Amino acid sequence: MLTLHHLENSQSIRILWLLEELGAEYKLEHYKRVGPQTLAPEEFKKLHTIGTSPIITNGALTLPETNAIVDYILDLYPDNKLRPSVDHPQREKYLYWLHSTQASLMPLLMESLIFKRMVSKVPFFMRPPIRLVVNKVKASYLYSRYDQIMAYMDEELSKSKWLTGDDLTAADIVMSYCLLVAEARIGRIENRPHVKRLIDQIRSYPSFQSAMKKNGEFNPLSV
Amino acid sequence: MLTLHHLENSQSIRILWLLEELGAEYKLEHYKRVGPQTLAPEEFKKLHTIGTSPIITNGALTLPETNAIVDYILDLYPDNKLRPSVDHPQREKYLYWLHSTQASLMPLLMESLIFKRMVSKVPFFMRPPIRLVVNKVKASYLYSRYDQIMAYMDEELSKSKWLTGDDLTAADIVMSYCLLVAEARIGRIENRPHVKRLIDQIRSYPSFQSAMKKNGEFNPLSV
Repeated sequence: MLTLHHLENSQSIRILWLLEELGAEYKLEHYKRVGPQTLAPEEFKKLHTIGTSPIITNGALTLPETNAIVDYILDLYPDNKLRPSVDHPQREKYLYWLHSTQASLMPLLMESLIFKRMVSKVPFFMRPPIRLVVNKVKASYLYSRYDQIMAYMDEELSKSKWLTGDDLTAADIVMSYCLLVAEARIGRIENRPHVKRLIDQIRSYPSFQSAMKKNGEFNPLSV
Repeated sequence: MLTLHHLENSQSIRILWLLEELGAEYKLEHYKRVGPQTLAPEEFKKLHTIGTSPIITNGALTLPETNAIVDYILDLYPDNKLRPSVDHPQREKYLYWLHSTQASLMPLLMESLIFKRMVSKVPFFMRPPIRLVVNKVKASYLYSRYDQIMAYMDEELSKSKWLTGDDLTAADIVMSYCLLVAEARIGRIENRPHVKRLIDQIRSYPSFQSAMKKNGEFNPLSV
């Protein structure tokens, strides 16, 4: 049986949502974060050479990487409505958001955490020069790319309920974690009413709430 | 007609390779990098709110994001052999490498460039503390994740010629740019004979060479 090795409060929460939304049969193995850096425990890292969350197993297969897992699970449910088919009019929008969420937005969230720790983990007298350099990179690169993505998302969401059209797709499910973390960690969405609406839609979606019951209350700042 | 808006020496080189490998009919629009930071020119950035390379246009469609473009182009060629089908035995390997190349390896290459510039762009008397902090993040995060991916890739490539099996797939094409940049910018592959072999295979592959003729000699350090 398909098993989700679920590291709490991690990128894995979308796999949990996906499985709940599909009404899939699956086994859930919980892993608690450990230590002051809230890292994955050793049992989790031992599952695969690539020890990052999420990871699923199914028979002889052990598969890491969010979107590889998403595509693999969607393959198992050929009648699902969460992945627009090749001839679907929203196919390109779907492909854009599915891929860009992980390849363009998620790295910026990771980098914002790295920059935060670069400042907070050094002795206090070293903080001013480090903060100066970090703020420069944030302004010239991180916020600039982040704002581009958020502006485009807001523009697209002014035309449709979900990222790719009127129906929920796996792109929204993958985006959920990013938006919740982005809102808490970076912000800068005060003037993005449609992005804020999408976050509300996600939070109140029944299968998302079922997933969050299984994860435990998700606190994006604990990540 | 499908047009590749090709920013020289950018992530776009894999789209060029993909089109050459498919023997596709397409129009190539060249964009030269400008200024001391070798950025995309204004005409390129104006193509889409998301102004990053690669970008294609096809009729009313303007599409950014490497893997969205890769999937879109593969959709146009349903008989292509570059994307293993849902029931293909190498499907999961393909999904893993296609997605992880962009979502897990590519961000590390971007971050190594950011860290390099964080040190080189500050006045020389500020470099020692900045370098100290940057080296700490490199050791604890960047090199650690990078080495995991390279170790896994080397292990997988000891079992097959290309990333997913004996045949070239779009995952190898997407990986090409990452490996060429990784080799030049980070290295750490002296003890990865199979990864080095893959780099050689890519460099000598006829359709890759045709693509490089159209790009102009690719120098990964110029990126």
